Amino acid sequence: MRRLPAEAYIEGVLTSDRVRLSQAITLIESKLPADRELAQQVMAAIMPHTGKAFRLGITGVPGVGKSTFINAFGGTLTQKGYKLAVLAIDPSSQRTRGSILGDKTRMDTLASDANAYIRPSPAGDSLGGVARKTREAMLLCEAAGYDFIIVETVGVGQSETAVRSMTDMFLLLMLPNAGDELQGIKKGIMEMADAIVINKADGNFEQKAKLAKAHYAQALHLFPPKPSGWHPPVLLASALQHIGLTEIADMLAEYEAALRQNTYWAQQRREQHLSWLHEAVQHHLSERFYQHPDVAAQLPTIEKDVIQGIVSPIQAAEALLKAFFAG
Amino acid sequence: MRRLPAEAYIEGVLTSDRVRLSQAITLIESKLPADRELAQQVMAAIMPHTGKAFRLGITGVPGVGKSTFINAFGGTLTQKGYKLAVLAIDPSSQRTRGSILGDKTRMDTLASDANAYIRPSPAGDSLGGVARKTREAMLLCEAAGYDFIIVETVGVGQSETAVRSMTDMFLLLMLPNAGDELQGIKKGIMEMADAIVINKADGNFEQKAKLAKAHYAQALHLFPPKPSGWHPPVLLASALQHIGLTEIADMLAEYEAALRQNTYWAQQRREQHLSWLHEAVQHHLSERFYQHPDVAAQLPTIEKDVIQGIVSPIQAAEALLKAFFAG
Repeated sequence: MRRLPAEAYIEGVLTSDRVRLSQAITLIESKLPADRELAQQVMAAIMPHTGKAFRLGITGVPGVGKSTFINAFGGTLTQKGYKLAVLAIDPSSQRTRGSILGDKTRMDTLASDANAYIRPSPAGDSLGGVARKTREAMLLCEAAGYDFIIVETVGVGQSETAVRSMTDMFLLLMLPNAGDELQGIKKGIMEMADAIVINKADGNFEQKAKLAKAHYAQALHLFPPKPSGWHPPVLLASALQHIGLTEIADMLAEYEAALRQNTYWAQQRREQHLSWLHEAVQHHLSERFYQHPDVAAQLPTIEKDVIQGIVSPIQAAEALLKAFFAG
Repeated sequence: MRRLPAEAYIEGVLTSDRVRLSQAITLIESKLPADRELAQQVMAAIMPHTGKAFRLGITGVPGVGKSTFINAFGGTLTQKGYKLAVLAIDPSSQRTRGSILGDKTRMDTLASDANAYIRPSPAGDSLGGVARKTREAMLLCEAAGYDFIIVETVGVGQSETAVRSMTDMFLLLMLPNAGDELQGIKKGIMEMADAIVINKADGNFEQKAKLAKAHYAQALHLFPPKPSGWHPPVLLASALQHIGLTEIADMLAEYEAALRQNTYWAQQRREQHLSWLHEAVQHHLSERFYQHPDVAAQLPTIEKDVIQGIVSPIQAAEALLKAFFAG
């Protein structure tokens, strides 16, 4: 792919040029070593223009209606004057370029909203990699003036921890099936939630949804209190019938106000930055290690020896490390 | 602490000298850089004598009766002719040396069994560190002739993944409270289990335990099938009244036979060795990085700058990496 000079990406992002923003995200998602330095230049330049958005993570099992919800709730947000960017992490999928159209169809109203920008996740990659790139994509969107970021994740894997570690608030979407403990949502994910929204709370499901609300409210009480002092509420909504969306927006505002007042908002971001620093170090060390020509040359044989039990994992690691630090 | 020459540890372990075994485990648990090389020498020498034990991970929430269960079930195993070693991972505790006595009291029958060796976890450390040392302690026990290893973990944190990644089978202890979905066990842990044992299935709880058995059996059906083809069973037991322990031992034997027959037993170990190799690399890279004098000198200031927002996490990581690779 043809690359532009760093200035073109930087200026494009800072002037909110959607095409340049998309190209910049493609650049940071690139796995080509040649793109790495350019991407780092762009990131370094846009960093001072980041940090002003509300960062919301949204998760829920497939079928809960995440896309429909984001499509509808996103409209509520842009009507309130927000510029909204929607990013998705889906480590299990092997999406291709075709999915961009797929996602736009899934969120068709939002996709045609001038104040919304939708970016699906890149094709399958390791979770760590996807998460790292999602964080940088989020920062690029912030630098482009988007002041509300939604990071969508699929709700069944480990991507929730990654999303929680880069957002200000984590919202869990549930179905109106009270007592159905096997929705596939892990307890750990429920424990992470700063709010639960029961979607599809309309028509025949209204009564069920109310029961579910009581059920989850009770379940949330059993978890230890949040360090921020915030008590996660349970809200009812119907994305399809646009019920409860304003209430959710109000609740988010309340959350931000409460956490800004007790300074936990800023503290959480600082902690996220610190762990990001150490993740970045780990990532670079590992990348340099496995890209080292001697390591790369020896790895296949050494892995085979470990699998066959000829060499112990510790000895194998030592041999590779010796090759790395000698070079 | 006074150290012996490597040969003394190696010979002691290989001749099943319990005092030397304990000293060798203390050596590999040591954080002193001076002990590192000695520990590596010992590990390299004993590696060829490892791999023959049945490695069983046991987890369950506090209160489920893990110690009582291991105390009683361990007796069943040694009566069957096994030499048993019990290791514990408890990342949440800040145990001190006093806990060795504490643990011996908890498992008093087993502690006086000549064919059993009990080793509590070291005082609080990072989870990764504890897990790494537990794996090495397990290998030392195997080299000392213990052919059944139980690794006990606390059942509420992330240590289960670590324990699962170093054992052949993972057993989840539950209480006889059917329908009580909030026992504190995360769904992900239940999904990891190769068998569930409902403990305290005696007296007034017998009926409840039977209901719980049906409940968990149904819940297990909803998880995707195991790659090994094994269907996790649910068994009833009472450690206090020595009920169901032989059945559990038989079930473990059945598990081993089934997995050896379809070669998954060996395959699982090979995969564990491969991920161990990469973990060891990550660990050593990270250790060398943070111990590097220039990195160690710059880190406090850089972390402060990141927290105050003066430097971005990416720039901070780059500065540290530059210092590391320059030196």
